[in-house]
Amino acid sequence: MINFRIIGNLMGVLLLIVGALMLTALPFSFYFNSGDHYALLISSGICLLTGGLLWKFKDAENTTPNIRKREGYLIVTLGWLVMSMFGMLPYLLSGAIPDVSNAFFETISGFTTTGASILNDIEATPKGILFWRSMTQWIGGMGIIVLAIAILPILGIGGMDLFLAESPGPTSDKLHPRIKETAKRLWGIYVFLTFLLTLLLLVGKMSFYDALNHALTTMATGGFSTQNSSVVDYAPFIQYVLVVFMFLAGTNFALIYFGLKGEPRKVWQSEEFRTYLFVCLFATLVITMGAYMVREVPFEQVFRDALFQVISLITTTGFVSADYTSWTPYLTVICLALMFLGASAGSTSGGIKIIRHYVMVKNGILEFKRLLHPRAIVPLTVNGKRLTPNIVTNVLVFLVLYIHVFVISTIIVSFMGLDLSTSMGAVATTLGNVGPGIGDLGPMDNFSGLPSLTKWFLSFLMLVGRLELFTVLILFTPYFWRSN
Amino acid sequence: MINFRIIGNLMGVLLLIVGALMLTALPFSFYFNSGDHYALLISSGICLLTGGLLWKFKDAENTTPNIRKREGYLIVTLGWLVMSMFGMLPYLLSGAIPDVSNAFFETISGFTTTGASILNDIEATPKGILFWRSMTQWIGGMGIIVLAIAILPILGIGGMDLFLAESPGPTSDKLHPRIKETAKRLWGIYVFLTFLLTLLLLVGKMSFYDALNHALTTMATGGFSTQNSSVVDYAPFIQYVLVVFMFLAGTNFALIYFGLKGEPRKVWQSEEFRTYLFVCLFATLVITMGAYMVREVPFEQVFRDALFQVISLITTTGFVSADYTSWTPYLTVICLALMFLGASAGSTSGGIKIIRHYVMVKNGILEFKRLLHPRAIVPLTVNGKRLTPNIVTNVLVFLVLYIHVFVISTIIVSFMGLDLSTSMGAVATTLGNVGPGIGDLGPMDNFSGLPSLTKWFLSFLMLVGRLELFTVLILFTPYFWRSN
Repeated sequence: MINFRIIGNLMGVLLLIVGALMLTALPFSFYFNSGDHYALLISSGICLLTGGLLWKFKDAENTTPNIRKREGYLIVTLGWLVMSMFGMLPYLLSGAIPDVSNAFFETISGFTTTGASILNDIEATPKGILFWRSMTQWIGGMGIIVLAIAILPILGIGGMDLFLAESPGPTSDKLHPRIKETAKRLWGIYVFLTFLLTLLLLVGKMSFYDALNHALTTMATGGFSTQNSSVVDYAPFIQYVLVVFMFLAGTNFALIYFGLKGEPRKVWQSEEFRTYLFVCLFATLVITMGAYMVREVPFEQVFRDALFQVISLITTTGFVSADYTSWTPYLTVICLALMFLGASAGSTSGGIKIIRHYVMVKNGILEFKRLLHPRAIVPLTVNGKRLTPNIVTNVLVFLVLYIHVFVISTIIVSFMGLDLSTSMGAVATTLGNVGPGIGDLGPMDNFSGLPSLTKWFLSFLMLVGRLELFTVLILFTPYFWRSN
Repeated sequence: MINFRIIGNLMGVLLLIVGALMLTALPFSFYFNSGDHYALLISSGICLLTGGLLWKFKDAENTTPNIRKREGYLIVTLGWLVMSMFGMLPYLLSGAIPDVSNAFFETISGFTTTGASILNDIEATPKGILFWRSMTQWIGGMGIIVLAIAILPILGIGGMDLFLAESPGPTSDKLHPRIKETAKRLWGIYVFLTFLLTLLLLVGKMSFYDALNHALTTMATGGFSTQNSSVVDYAPFIQYVLVVFMFLAGTNFALIYFGLKGEPRKVWQSEEFRTYLFVCLFATLVITMGAYMVREVPFEQVFRDALFQVISLITTTGFVSADYTSWTPYLTVICLALMFLGASAGSTSGGIKIIRHYVMVKNGILEFKRLLHPRAIVPLTVNGKRLTPNIVTNVLVFLVLYIHVFVISTIIVSFMGLDLSTSMGAVATTLGNVGPGIGDLGPMDNFSGLPSLTKWFLSFLMLVGRLELFTVLILFTPYFWRSN
């Protein structure tokens, strides 16, 4: 029996948060006199009212509800859906995005921190609405932190705790006070880094409005920009600052916590962090060399663009500093491949994540040893901890499932009329929560020209990817609905 | 310590077989007076002489050599390489293919039963040489049967025995008399079906030469044709006959044995066979429907071409009855995806194989059950047999490794100057031992225009794919060469 009362109650809480944070766009609406304050106020009112009603209907007899796994999956999936359904109200009511499929696409692209957009003229969008757009990503990033610390481990999906030698993670099946404490600390880091990035962008001579927007969407590894050309026209200083903060946003937040606490050794001990750093540097090296052979711009720009796009794609942020599909075909293939990496578990980045690739590669190499010595026990260790076969299987199943979702979705999207490259890019970028694709949906294009049905399908993929596949897909299995 | 004496001795045996079978092309050379008999005779002489010398150098003291795992991997990989190096002599000496990289590509494409060709005018090639070309595939298919029954199981790579409830498979680590018996029986089936197909093609009014050539390359799931347009111009009867025999060649030969022995229930009990049949029918249905909407030809032809290409691609034969890349983009995507299927274990087909997909999908679905019931033991059964976690891991690692080899190879090939679709197609078709690709290497094109380096790389991929990845790749790990 699924306790729908608890679920409704929690949806109420989420809507109260969404409604309240919607109001943060009001000052900008008034300051720029962008005429969208009514839309924001009414939308916020609807969220707060609905949220309040749902919240009041909570189970009075059960004051400390015990949320079980089954409800967990539903809460997470419905949570992102409900936020997106109500979060699109400002777009619709202000007329900034009058079409429902477009508005929903833009909103779920925000809450899933994807950053794929259907806006043709971002700079013409009212400033209040545009701030709300950035805020959806920041809220999404906040949600992901809770997901990684508190919820995924309970749901049995490789959360950051699995791969961190020393983590303030969960110790039992219930929401533990210690988890609350961890969440608060990591949120503190998230807020602090957002604040710090805003300051640095101000130093780089960005306006306060642009600085805050970019800070919100960088820390969420979202990638919504306030400029039509993303960050192409910004000064090198700003681009380098963004590189650093995208990298940080793709780092396990618990490691950042240890780093700030003055324990850098713990950061360096993490095999995921070292691999993440190595992969970023290696990909930058390869793309710099490849692009240097064909681009007629100074070396510094070749390097900066390569570094920026590598970090932007690996962390699944999706900011664009250069049209990476225009360099040479094989670099486009590499950029497409980078969309499948993802940064660290326990960060706001999406995609497969480095740790899963790491486990898979390490296990793949050990499999050769197992072939030669079939009677030997060859265990897999990460950070000195031996992984159980169940975890390894879960990681492998995740990867295989990811590939299957990718292939089947590419067939579906190509059936809707896109060519092979564009279809693959569209699926890779939405499933991986990156943002820009390749082909007709490259870094200089947007998703506005797609048929409505394709937009809904890609919206679904963003949700599936963001919630680590299992969370959404389990709802489509008979096991989930079988009462037991 | 690796016993190189045994390895050399076995290479000698292989060369004796190759040299002897080369002579089967002579009658055609004389009959058609195609002027290639000297090239065939000299090549055969070189093979027999080298083979004889290597064979004589066998370890006199050790009359019943005990081949160990380590030597097993080397023997299989070197075996295919040595056969290809000597098998290309007729092409070189006759001048039919004067270039070494082309000749090697064509030969390894034969022995690996891939069927990718660099010949621009197949019909102009001397008839004796062309027969040898078909014969390389048939020899390759024969080798694959031994590999599947006797060698892969010992090397720890999922052979057919793992997935067959009742199989005449190996029971110990040494080459067992029972395995010899099994190999003989399955070879008998292989020869019998080749003979039967030749007869049926003669009934279809093919010339004896063409009938025998197509029979040899069909049963090997190779796909070399004697016509420039592959089987496009043949009558529907012939195409349907080829469909049936490609399907049979993609069926586990042990099942065909049981079927012929009058035990059809054993065939039907095989979960792999049922899945194989279902996948073929389902893909045919989808492609027929899709192609019917865009092709302006009678329904029977739409259906026949769809059926033919589905069976040809799934069994990794690679015969072409229609340009499947000209129908509509999403059907091309589906055809590309079919190249990743492969037919049954224990057949002559290449690729990933249905049983691995089956294990992976079944395990993937069970993983959702495991998530909901983390303390329950949810075993995976195939044909009523419970698979050990080691086998499941091996299958998952195989798949993930396959995807990685595919992605990295696509990047390498695109770096050599091919566009994304062409690169993906070239890698998919060579790694999967299919034959034709997509893009610039589609079913109406051939591989002759590629740079030499690309041809050597694709030759390597054919070998890696044919020998089930592990066999070749293990030679590149330190574990293999570490004396222990």
